[in-house]
Amino acid sequence: MTAIALPDGTLDLAHRLADAAGGVIRPYFRTLVSVDDKADESPVTVADREAEMAMRTLLLAERPDDGLVGEEHGTVNPGADWVWVLDPIDGTKSFITGMPTFGTLIALLYKGVPVLGIIDQPISGERWVGVNGQRSTLNGREISVRDCAGLGQAVAFTTDPALFTGDDAAAWARLNGAVKMRRYSADCYAYGLLATGFVDVVCEAGMKLYDFAAVVPVIQGAGGIITDWQGGPLGQMSDGHILAAGDARTHAEAMLRLKG
Amino acid sequence: MTAIALPDGTLDLAHRLADAAGGVIRPYFRTLVSVDDKADESPVTVADREAEMAMRTLLLAERPDDGLVGEEHGTVNPGADWVWVLDPIDGTKSFITGMPTFGTLIALLYKGVPVLGIIDQPISGERWVGVNGQRSTLNGREISVRDCAGLGQAVAFTTDPALFTGDDAAAWARLNGAVKMRRYSADCYAYGLLATGFVDVVCEAGMKLYDFAAVVPVIQGAGGIITDWQGGPLGQMSDGHILAAGDARTHAEAMLRLKG
Repeated sequence: MTAIALPDGTLDLAHRLADAAGGVIRPYFRTLVSVDDKADESPVTVADREAEMAMRTLLLAERPDDGLVGEEHGTVNPGADWVWVLDPIDGTKSFITGMPTFGTLIALLYKGVPVLGIIDQPISGERWVGVNGQRSTLNGREISVRDCAGLGQAVAFTTDPALFTGDDAAAWARLNGAVKMRRYSADCYAYGLLATGFVDVVCEAGMKLYDFAAVVPVIQGAGGIITDWQGGPLGQMSDGHILAAGDARTHAEAMLRLKG
Repeated sequence: MTAIALPDGTLDLAHRLADAAGGVIRPYFRTLVSVDDKADESPVTVADREAEMAMRTLLLAERPDDGLVGEEHGTVNPGADWVWVLDPIDGTKSFITGMPTFGTLIALLYKGVPVLGIIDQPISGERWVGVNGQRSTLNGREISVRDCAGLGQAVAFTTDPALFTGDDAAAWARLNGAVKMRRYSADCYAYGLLATGFVDVVCEAGMKLYDFAAVVPVIQGAGGIITDWQGGPLGQMSDGHILAAGDARTHAEAMLRLKG
């Protein structure tokens, strides 16, 4: 795909969105925040809501014609060419248990395709940035996935084995049984580590657009592959199954295991 | 139990051990370190070995008569009244995947009972300290567990659901099914968060003395309970089953679930 040119000031704006969210989130970290359970039983806090509102306020002021999809406060103008997708705290379970491995996710979609993504960890001060057609960075330094000849050498992450139900559970069990090492509960942070060359596979199901849109440009700009379980591109119409790998050979082998 | 008086300079020495280990570990974090697999398939790196050696060098110079148990370099004088127990990197899987949630564990046992413990995270700069008879601290600030009326409100951590085999797997499944939320792959960091009031239960099996000795004084000094699965005290003769809770009610209920 030809690289999409971002409107002037877009990357700077994305950084300012992350700064704004982090400024809201940091004072709440490891304090007593009350936790509400949403309909899907995922927890949400005042930090989630206020951080998203801080980002929406900036976007509505500076990009009033763009679309906006936020985890906590809903969707505006989703048919626009340019749509921002926000998850103020991906990994709220980490946030509320004091684990500094949650992240603010900021994505910009052009005609449904993620072309800019930020994974921001406001406690450790780590910010991964991916822009369509450019090398991804972690705190400004260029990053790259690592080689991995096959699943037998792979370190695989998933957020929670309980996310996989029915046929997905059997598919995950086949993949999980084939890898060298598996780790859990890292949410978006696992994708950042994959893009930086320390993790080989991330596999998940049940993900929403705001869970994965931002990680797509980060992974791709680091030389990795991220698709649905059939190898199709991720975007507004994806079914929430995610397979990311740093090495194409590992990605292909993982797809075969998922298929059975 | 009456509080055991530590020999002069012991806490200061323990801090210097943690400083020494961290000084070795930090430059290796997120670099290409080669990983060896031990007999039990747990990974070990040059950072593990050199960090333990840095601590052993200090101990042999300053406490030549004390015993010493290290994960990587073996045991010296285990029958001494005072025995140091070292795990240079608890959570090597986190270390090698770039997750800043591993820890250096330093314990001092008096006649088999842990009376001093440090959990040190050298990347985030977090240090939990527990001393028999004193309030535990995180970076010098006093910490406390939180109330949790029962398992239905509890957040539970375990390192890896695959650690539980046979009867242990069934016991863990009963406990896991009763809690509100579960998270994985945090190793010693989960105990630090429990002592700080953000996690309610940590349950594990297959742990070695160097995996749990340091966390015992940290948890106890924060008002929590940490025992084996039968409620017995943890020490040199423990069987590697760990149940920690911040609230005695939750601990009692968890023991019932583990028993079936």
